[in-house]
Amino acid sequence: MLSIVIVGTGNVAKHLFNAFAKSEEVKIVQVVGRNQNSLEGFSNIVPFSNDFAQIVDADVYIIAVKDDAIAKVSQSLASKKGIVVHTSGSVEMDSIVSPNRGVFYPLQTFTKDKALDFKSIPICIEAKQDESLKVVQMLGEDISEKVYVITSDQRKKLHLAAVFANNFTNHLYSISESICLQEGLSFELLQPLILETAKKIQSISPKEAQTGPARRNDKKSIQNHLSLLKDKKQTELYILFSEAIKKRYEEEL
Amino acid sequence: MLSIVIVGTGNVAKHLFNAFAKSEEVKIVQVVGRNQNSLEGFSNIVPFSNDFAQIVDADVYIIAVKDDAIAKVSQSLASKKGIVVHTSGSVEMDSIVSPNRGVFYPLQTFTKDKALDFKSIPICIEAKQDESLKVVQMLGEDISEKVYVITSDQRKKLHLAAVFANNFTNHLYSISESICLQEGLSFELLQPLILETAKKIQSISPKEAQTGPARRNDKKSIQNHLSLLKDKKQTELYILFSEAIKKRYEEEL
Repeated sequence: MLSIVIVGTGNVAKHLFNAFAKSEEVKIVQVVGRNQNSLEGFSNIVPFSNDFAQIVDADVYIIAVKDDAIAKVSQSLASKKGIVVHTSGSVEMDSIVSPNRGVFYPLQTFTKDKALDFKSIPICIEAKQDESLKVVQMLGEDISEKVYVITSDQRKKLHLAAVFANNFTNHLYSISESICLQEGLSFELLQPLILETAKKIQSISPKEAQTGPARRNDKKSIQNHLSLLKDKKQTELYILFSEAIKKRYEEEL
Repeated sequence: MLSIVIVGTGNVAKHLFNAFAKSEEVKIVQVVGRNQNSLEGFSNIVPFSNDFAQIVDADVYIIAVKDDAIAKVSQSLASKKGIVVHTSGSVEMDSIVSPNRGVFYPLQTFTKDKALDFKSIPICIEAKQDESLKVVQMLGEDISEKVYVITSDQRKKLHLAAVFANNFTNHLYSISESICLQEGLSFELLQPLILETAKKIQSISPKEAQTGPARRNDKKSIQNHLSLLKDKKQTELYILFSEAIKKRYEEEL
């Protein structure tokens, strides 16, 4: 049985808590957070503490706090023997002061109060010490079927790729919503298309799945669309995407 | 009972065929296509023709061909009494020569051999004559629970919004795949994130759902990402998205 302490009370902390709370192999021995209020959403079967000097002993400490607080929080754990991991996609493993350190990065977008099935969430792990890597791997495999050992450099690139796949994609959704609302149309009209677009690339490479005016170099449709766009940033994005898509498939046209 | 002829043998034609083939209210009386080979995928219970001079009489003719072929195909139907509709998001209703014309635009991305549940696919309709609108609406409601009467201007804007939500989004997936492959990482790592990002906006407005370095104006992460990007178009997109997201939420920061 592995004992863990979760440090943090945000979305990631809460989702990890819920996943490990069901485990028979891992026991959450404490949840630590700065303010008592945000601890309230957690189950009351696990001891809470808002005193970073009172953290109990455990096999693994999972720091699930904001990126720029990780280094500071890890100082409270400097004297502990257990493995200290953070859950960030972009922070250096070596930001953690403990010599026995690692990374436990669940690659998913977490929404408050929206349950997720952890089994299918990729967990990207890394550890300074080989023995610790085995423990972190056990921890990952306890809640997910997809545990990947990757390097810090790979993780940084993966985080960058995730910004394109998640943050920028969401901004495109946001633009499409604006265009609908300006025309008095419900965003509901686009929701099935958006879901199907994401489902499609679960089995087909996005390179193969590409369609649209830019893909087939349909200059007339592109001109029509540009004449409809009034917003400067939306126009710039439309032009840049059309150029990038055209360039990507140039040899095939 | 409504009788329909489907003109076209591509993805949209085939998906509409499969949807109406199950109907008890609509009868497909003929499928018309240029070449015999592409007609093969259709059920053999409906008569096929590759002779546009031999199109039979029907209540509605659904032209599901490439945008730039719609006007020409509609000429073969000029003498017919039935309603002639096309299925395009961007072509003028008036491209159809018949006076009794309309639009039957299913807003979805169709993949060959990938079954879709038509019930949840929005169908945007329009008709030149009020009486015909009722018939086109019946046709839509026969296969979908989401039939919207919209104008040609609204449809053009909707098609533009769909390019952002589908084509450009897919290109972002494609970029994220490239970044993974360059690092020797499987694109499987990002698939659950992509699906969850699309699921999230089924219940939350994308404007509310926005996260990431640009959203919180995290200049350090943005600089780190830019230093990792080598491709010029990817860099341009990263900068433009970050500026656009920052601008959108400026008043809130």
